[in-house]
Amino acid sequence: MPKIQESKDKKKQTQQRNNPKPKNEQKNGKSKKNDNVKNKTKNAKPVKNRKPEKAENHAPQKKAPKMRIIPLGGLGEIGKNLTLYDYAGSMFIVDCGMTFPDEDTPGIDVIIPDFDYLEKNKDKIKGLVITHGHEDHIGAVPYLLKKLNIPIYGTRLSLGLIEGKLREHKMLGDAKLNTVDAGSVIKLGAFTVEFIHVNHSIPGAVALAIRCPAGVVVQTGDFKIDTTPIDDKMIDLARFAELGKEGVLALLSDSTNAERPGFTSSERLVGESFSTLFKKAEGHRIIVATFSSNIHRIQQIIDEAVRCGRKVAISGRSMVNVVAVASELGYLKVPDGVIIEIETIKNYPLEKLVIVTTGSQGEPMSALHRMAYSDHRNVEIIPGDMIIISATPIPGNEKFVSRVVNELMKRGANVVYEKMYDVHVSGHACREELKIILSLVKPQYYIPLHGEQKHLVKNAQLGEAMGIPKENIIIATIGNVIELSRRKAKIIDTVQAGRVLVDGLGVGDVGSTVLRDRKHLAEDGVIVITVTMDSVTGEVLAGPEIISRGFIYARESENMMADAHEAACDALEQCYIKNIRDMNTVKTRMRDAVSRYLYEQTRRSPMILPIIMYV
Amino acid sequence: MPKIQESKDKKKQTQQRNNPKPKNEQKNGKSKKNDNVKNKTKNAKPVKNRKPEKAENHAPQKKAPKMRIIPLGGLGEIGKNLTLYDYAGSMFIVDCGMTFPDEDTPGIDVIIPDFDYLEKNKDKIKGLVITHGHEDHIGAVPYLLKKLNIPIYGTRLSLGLIEGKLREHKMLGDAKLNTVDAGSVIKLGAFTVEFIHVNHSIPGAVALAIRCPAGVVVQTGDFKIDTTPIDDKMIDLARFAELGKEGVLALLSDSTNAERPGFTSSERLVGESFSTLFKKAEGHRIIVATFSSNIHRIQQIIDEAVRCGRKVAISGRSMVNVVAVASELGYLKVPDGVIIEIETIKNYPLEKLVIVTTGSQGEPMSALHRMAYSDHRNVEIIPGDMIIISATPIPGNEKFVSRVVNELMKRGANVVYEKMYDVHVSGHACREELKIILSLVKPQYYIPLHGEQKHLVKNAQLGEAMGIPKENIIIATIGNVIELSRRKAKIIDTVQAGRVLVDGLGVGDVGSTVLRDRKHLAEDGVIVITVTMDSVTGEVLAGPEIISRGFIYARESENMMADAHEAACDALEQCYIKNIRDMNTVKTRMRDAVSRYLYEQTRRSPMILPIIMYV
Repeated sequence: MPKIQESKDKKKQTQQRNNPKPKNEQKNGKSKKNDNVKNKTKNAKPVKNRKPEKAENHAPQKKAPKMRIIPLGGLGEIGKNLTLYDYAGSMFIVDCGMTFPDEDTPGIDVIIPDFDYLEKNKDKIKGLVITHGHEDHIGAVPYLLKKLNIPIYGTRLSLGLIEGKLREHKMLGDAKLNTVDAGSVIKLGAFTVEFIHVNHSIPGAVALAIRCPAGVVVQTGDFKIDTTPIDDKMIDLARFAELGKEGVLALLSDSTNAERPGFTSSERLVGESFSTLFKKAEGHRIIVATFSSNIHRIQQIIDEAVRCGRKVAISGRSMVNVVAVASELGYLKVPDGVIIEIETIKNYPLEKLVIVTTGSQGEPMSALHRMAYSDHRNVEIIPGDMIIISATPIPGNEKFVSRVVNELMKRGANVVYEKMYDVHVSGHACREELKIILSLVKPQYYIPLHGEQKHLVKNAQLGEAMGIPKENIIIATIGNVIELSRRKAKIIDTVQAGRVLVDGLGVGDVGSTVLRDRKHLAEDGVIVITVTMDSVTGEVLAGPEIISRGFIYARESENMMADAHEAACDALEQCYIKNIRDMNTVKTRMRDAVSRYLYEQTRRSPMILPIIMYV
Repeated sequence: MPKIQESKDKKKQTQQRNNPKPKNEQKNGKSKKNDNVKNKTKNAKPVKNRKPEKAENHAPQKKAPKMRIIPLGGLGEIGKNLTLYDYAGSMFIVDCGMTFPDEDTPGIDVIIPDFDYLEKNKDKIKGLVITHGHEDHIGAVPYLLKKLNIPIYGTRLSLGLIEGKLREHKMLGDAKLNTVDAGSVIKLGAFTVEFIHVNHSIPGAVALAIRCPAGVVVQTGDFKIDTTPIDDKMIDLARFAELGKEGVLALLSDSTNAERPGFTSSERLVGESFSTLFKKAEGHRIIVATFSSNIHRIQQIIDEAVRCGRKVAISGRSMVNVVAVASELGYLKVPDGVIIEIETIKNYPLEKLVIVTTGSQGEPMSALHRMAYSDHRNVEIIPGDMIIISATPIPGNEKFVSRVVNELMKRGANVVYEKMYDVHVSGHACREELKIILSLVKPQYYIPLHGEQKHLVKNAQLGEAMGIPKENIIIATIGNVIELSRRKAKIIDTVQAGRVLVDGLGVGDVGSTVLRDRKHLAEDGVIVITVTMDSVTGEVLAGPEIISRGFIYARESENMMADAHEAACDALEQCYIKNIRDMNTVKTRMRDAVSRYLYEQTRRSPMILPIIMYV
């Protein structure tokens, strides 16, 4: 096995492996970008001219170590993406995302991957590579760094957004952040990782070409093929083609839109809709809600505002943050004097205003939600306001969005939402785009990533339709250890993987028992029965007292609660008569008696907590 | 005002009012159906020949009573439809539906309209007219009948489904059910109500032409225009046209699909998809999930099964019930020997089976859900099973459906869902259909019904586009009293309206306080602090004891819980030292101390219940 030496020279080109063809960077307009590469630490190195090299790893080598890919998140789910690569004990991680809670995880703030396997391999993990700055790819970074403070590699915007997170967690000082650009190659132990520009709904998104002596793996990250992107930088299809020609062992591809036929529309289409709608809204205020991370969308809103001579105010904490970061890093280009503070909008005529806001998912604490419910400090919706919700509800959020739309309409606003105009396009590749990437990369193995089972299955079927043998397509689940060689790919093992719930400051201190209790409490409420007894005689000294919460209007159910009290008293008396002194037995008798009575009366089963105090 | 005398003769034709043109029933194929009319009680009367009559009420009559329409459900929401008509104190109700709970109403079983205004007008209400048998139109009937046992009028299937409900509530004996058919006219106090056949996703759906001396109002109910319906009975467009020619005061129209352009596809399209998919599934078992009330869908599944020589088994309680009712009433035509018991499917080869099941919305207790999670007594999903989910997720159910699809796919099933094939069509009119009805009925006033604000607004905009003056279009909210005359339509008052929560046997005993507590409990759990004190000295005799549920893994947080206990002890001690004896003050001190400590540690705010017992 060829050992790859780690270079310690900051300025030195990364050693190029398995790169059989020279690539003229000037050709596809990357020279400028590569000039911008900043290398903050030793492992990030720009590559301006790739040297041809023999593809020495393509021939099957007997007994050579194999590459292992261990997805620890993002399979069987949308969110908390995390993939571990392992070659002969040399490891690195791609992405470290979070996912949002739902009705099955009441009270939970965020859900992160289980890092157990990473902690066990702490010393072997050389770094974390980020494909882009969305929460499902970077949201769990602070939690990971608390366990293992490895260097992080990502494009400027990805790292800019991570910086914000680390600052909030007061962890920025210790973090090892390394900016890379598309075109760069970095070395991480036995691996090199090349960053390839892709289009997505956030700038600075990259795919990865991951090399080790066992071969090349391409991981797409989230992507789409946008032939007319806002920054004019189309996905680097040529590089995918070169890699395909070179020979790619496996392609790990985004499955999010694998159910959708055709192509995802260009982001530019949304700009055209804005243009139409801004014209329609002449004489009225315009409010646009979108994802704060969709810088190109915000750029288009600003551009259109400038064209119409309107000022732009930003509302919502994350929107304010991201606009600041993106402007500072040059992703967002705003002419001087266009952006005004939200507190000053009253100084401008309504028809000269555009407000860009969070809340496109109807989130209850978001700025748009507050506007809809007349709870926003600076914005009161009035008849005639043109409100554009430039987003599609994420599955599960449909009702929240509808509620906000309904409220805004009740206030007389003109609301544009969902598919009525092209005010949103997806950031993910549809079926034809996935097929194009497959046709360019021509991988030996195809591994659908990023999706629930249905997305993975649809993506796998695409692979089959494109001629990849069924046995070369792997639908994995998190924790699977996928071992790849030229001979075969198979799942050889399963390691610990799952989800860890974050609730307030607690990470992992809420598990299935607590959640079950929370759901039980939410369904039928709680009843507490307290009684004080003589520890010697077993006589009742005080109580039983019964209090309830979340069960019934207690004031209108006094008779029933009195009867429940009676039932508890009877149970206690029976215990006393039968000389039952064991505390747990007495508790159980009380609980059962009250529970039975209340169920008969209401067909409800509140959680019943009997408490006995001995004096 | 002309007094309309109530006839007591069962066989006698209903007196016809305001019906200027004779209508040949034979022409539109209604003769057969009318022959089937059953009149169970005195007020339901079939009409075979309508007599021409002068439209004496069209000229504005000064000081004449006006018609009032009071929607008590179904506006600003999808569900619990209920509309009250009032002419000079003579009242009747159209529909009495329920709605399903969501994450805002934890533990609630169903939500019904507030009947307060109906109870107050108990003696004036002559009857309940049902447009069709969906839950959002009949689901609250048993609850209404408990308050006022008025006669009910509906088509056979609607009443068949209501009978089932009343049987469950042990109320069937006292109910006054009156079967009517499309084409019938009944008299209810000052009103006559004519039933007009429409297409919908359940058979036996009707629109209503409601007459009183103030004029004619048309209420569409839920409808679509299906030019090729499964029972060959197309919506009676001609009758809408006749009414339009006669002159209609107001049209109350279904807004459910007012956002959707074009036309809703014919139910027959789904049959073609079944045909294709059944062919694809040759050699495998087929499982189709759909709404139990969609008899035409079930008919098409059965027809295709018969064509393919397959037996049909029914799974899921409501599916079994509805298939039985629909077969008995002749809505569903099943050749002998086709339907087999679900328990006997093991006696047939897989490829000779079709299972029709509930669970198309991914409902956690439904048959399909149990199949997906290997929890169904008779059906175990195996690789190759073709599963067709013949429905679209109702907003809010998307995640449930996705989960079921994912689980089924994990078991190797071939799952067809959502828009991949035309396995579902809506039952509601899209924009072009709404416009056709508007063009035929030509109402003076347009009142969108059945929808959230956004649907009502879109429907209102359609009306405007069709030439109805803006001031003649009324977007109301529940409780509004809409008064109509030839001169003007306006909202003159608002009466009590809202929602009543049903939880188990309790109707209305869960309100906002209980719900708030449930949500609080679900978020962060509950902590109970109990202490026994000497009632004279204020000395602590036992405790404080702290127990928690739904807050944290108690076993892994012993230190924190010990510190919380310490905080409670400190608070008690302070009270003792400062000679604070008031129970409520002591409780508050304990609660605040524990709450503060736990928030610092966890950033969570569980519900804290301090209980003091005095000995």
